[in-house]
Amino acid sequence: MKLNIALLAGDGIGPEVIDQAVKVSDAVAAKFGHEISWTPALTGAAAIDAVGEPYPDETHEACVAADAVLFGAIGHPRFDNDPSAKVRPEQGLLKMRQKLGLFANVRPTFTFPSLIEKSPLKKERIEGTDLVFLRELTGGIYFGKRGREDNDNTAYDTCTYTRAEVERLAKKGFEMAMQRSKKLCCVDKANVLETSRLWRETVQKLEKEYPEVEVSYEFVDAVAMRLVQWPSAYDVLITENLFGDILTDEASVISGSMGLMPSASLGEKTSLFEPIHGSYPQAAGKDIANPLATVLSAAMMFETAFGLKDEAEAIREVVNRSLADGVVTEDLADGGKSYKTSEVGDWLAKNI
Amino acid sequence: MKLNIALLAGDGIGPEVIDQAVKVSDAVAAKFGHEISWTPALTGAAAIDAVGEPYPDETHEACVAADAVLFGAIGHPRFDNDPSAKVRPEQGLLKMRQKLGLFANVRPTFTFPSLIEKSPLKKERIEGTDLVFLRELTGGIYFGKRGREDNDNTAYDTCTYTRAEVERLAKKGFEMAMQRSKKLCCVDKANVLETSRLWRETVQKLEKEYPEVEVSYEFVDAVAMRLVQWPSAYDVLITENLFGDILTDEASVISGSMGLMPSASLGEKTSLFEPIHGSYPQAAGKDIANPLATVLSAAMMFETAFGLKDEAEAIREVVNRSLADGVVTEDLADGGKSYKTSEVGDWLAKNI
Ligand SMILES: CC(C)[C@H](C(=O)O)[C@@H](O)C(=O)O
Ligand SMILES: CC(C)[C@H](C(=O)O)[C@@H](O)C(=O)O
Repeated sequence: MKLNIALLAGDGIGPEVIDQAVKVSDAVAAKFGHEISWTPALTGAAAIDAVGEPYPDETHEACVAADAVLFGAIGHPRFDNDPSAKVRPEQGLLKMRQKLGLFANVRPTFTFPSLIEKSPLKKERIEGTDLVFLRELTGGIYFGKRGREDNDNTAYDTCTYTRAEVERLAKKGFEMAMQRSKKLCCVDKANVLETSRLWRETVQKLEKEYPEVEVSYEFVDAVAMRLVQWPSAYDVLITENLFGDILTDEASVISGSMGLMPSASLGEKTSLFEPIHGSYPQAAGKDIANPLATVLSAAMMFETAFGLKDEAEAIREVVNRSLADGVVTEDLADGGKSYKTSEVGDWLAKNI
Repeated sequence: MKLNIALLAGDGIGPEVIDQAVKVSDAVAAKFGHEISWTPALTGAAAIDAVGEPYPDETHEACVAADAVLFGAIGHPRFDNDPSAKVRPEQGLLKMRQKLGLFANVRPTFTFPSLIEKSPLKKERIEGTDLVFLRELTGGIYFGKRGREDNDNTAYDTCTYTRAEVERLAKKGFEMAMQRSKKLCCVDKANVLETSRLWRETVQKLEKEYPEVEVSYEFVDAVAMRLVQWPSAYDVLITENLFGDILTDEASVISGSMGLMPSASLGEKTSLFEPIHGSYPQAAGKDIANPLATVLSAAMMFETAFGLKDEAEAIREVVNRSLADGVVTEDLADGGKSYKTSEVGDWLAKNI
């Protein structure tokens, strides 16, 4: 099979971790007889520096032309304390999501037995945790009308959802639930928000099409609590953009494996895969960043974008072996022997 | 001193826990030579049943006439799966906040050494945690314009903030920081929301008036993570209404002492004190609910509403003694001897 992949390394440690995912992907492709054509393109602060904007047209064209997009990380401290800067890396991210129509962000949280002690939570609370958030990614308050009024003394943001937007996301949630344990939780704030009431109505209607799926409705504040108390109680959770932003980040720290968590953003036409961690600028260029979340994002890409399950499994298997054999970067080495980012990538590619 | 207190017991376990707070307050008043006049009034589902609405005018008048309001809990399962019900207990809560102008919700999270093992987090992560959230309570997306459009196919909610609203809340935050360790964290989503940029601008301006306070600005998604990772890193946190709803609930479970956490809602004219837990309908009428959060809310009331610090300290001291002596309800008894709600209240009142 010929696989056309756009490669958006981005900022900070992005290029380094992406390099390892490329090595591992090429190795798995060679093993299974596929050919990958990588198309690198600029994004984030790197793109601002080069062409003055964080998601240039050429990058968009490269993404549209590709079968899938593999993404590193974006963000640079230079922009962090200046939220009103005219051009910001994050704008590129939002523009990319919108222009590529990446409406469903899939964020799994699961535990690696060898890392469970790294969690801030007690082991008995997180054992068996294996949940996945489906966050709506192209609507809500992120993309509604916003501005100032009253002589710059009032600011407003608008959260908007259409029935079709909710339905599209919720359907993916039901389908995912059918492939897992048939449990779905709809997270909203229907006791206050009109958009949440539309979410709840829409999901309640869809319930009839998926009679096997057991659906629960919970308020976002309650979920923020229960995620810390008993994360293993959840399976598939669907939610709107802003709630998803907050809750997926919260969920990412409970397993102790944040440095390993991959994610996918799915659209009608293409899909994008990226680690959930950020650009970690302090570590940039030092060859010390943990590449496993990006490597596992490549595994998700093989499975989700190309339907290549064995290839995905081969990547996951070699990652597990590297953890078992202690071929890990310093964040996972517990003071023992550690490897460079590039060494971990080399080892994975060789041992696949 | 003569203390006029409106007493809103509310629903579920509300009346039972409020009864204990009344006993303890009366005991402390007797000891220090004060006289309390309690004015009970209806709210929540109880008020809907009696007069058809959750925050009746008579209740509002009782609150306005009082020097402070002591509140139990509201909410009833009968309304829970019907978010579009015309009259709901929560509406009473929101109406009460708005009509009484309770713009600042103060929610401390701290650890009780004897309860630290109950936390889902590891002890070394939470030791020393002593933070307080200041949540804006009468603005934002809770009170903005909302509705349906496009033939009922689109829903919207509007988040609005004025400079004056932000300033009023932020000032309270700076004042609180000055009385604590002079650290303030402003939680927003300034990389996306216009209202958040107004928050950040306003707080940045106020920084000049409080040069001793060290201010940090963090995104809501990052705080949702860090609260679980290292809660003790925070001291005073200020934030808008919806972020505050989510984060204060998340914070409430980290200490292991949720059943003990009090809260205050402050306004220009009056203030209200309530436990942070809900109406816990399953336990209603069984005399088993833990009354300590409500008793500690009464302590906050003595200190904050009346400036009576010794009285507040006396309540906190007797609560600590009840914990040390094991005079606790079953949720804290660890399978050992436990006491009824009313017995705990009696013990506290007698031993003050
Ligand atoms: C950088 C920011 C705009 C973005 C978001 O809020 O969506 C990030 O937090 C994320 O979750 O991918
Ligand atoms: C009941 C609900 C409307 C309320 C809120 O969201 O403010 C509650 O969650 C709270 O935090 O007091």
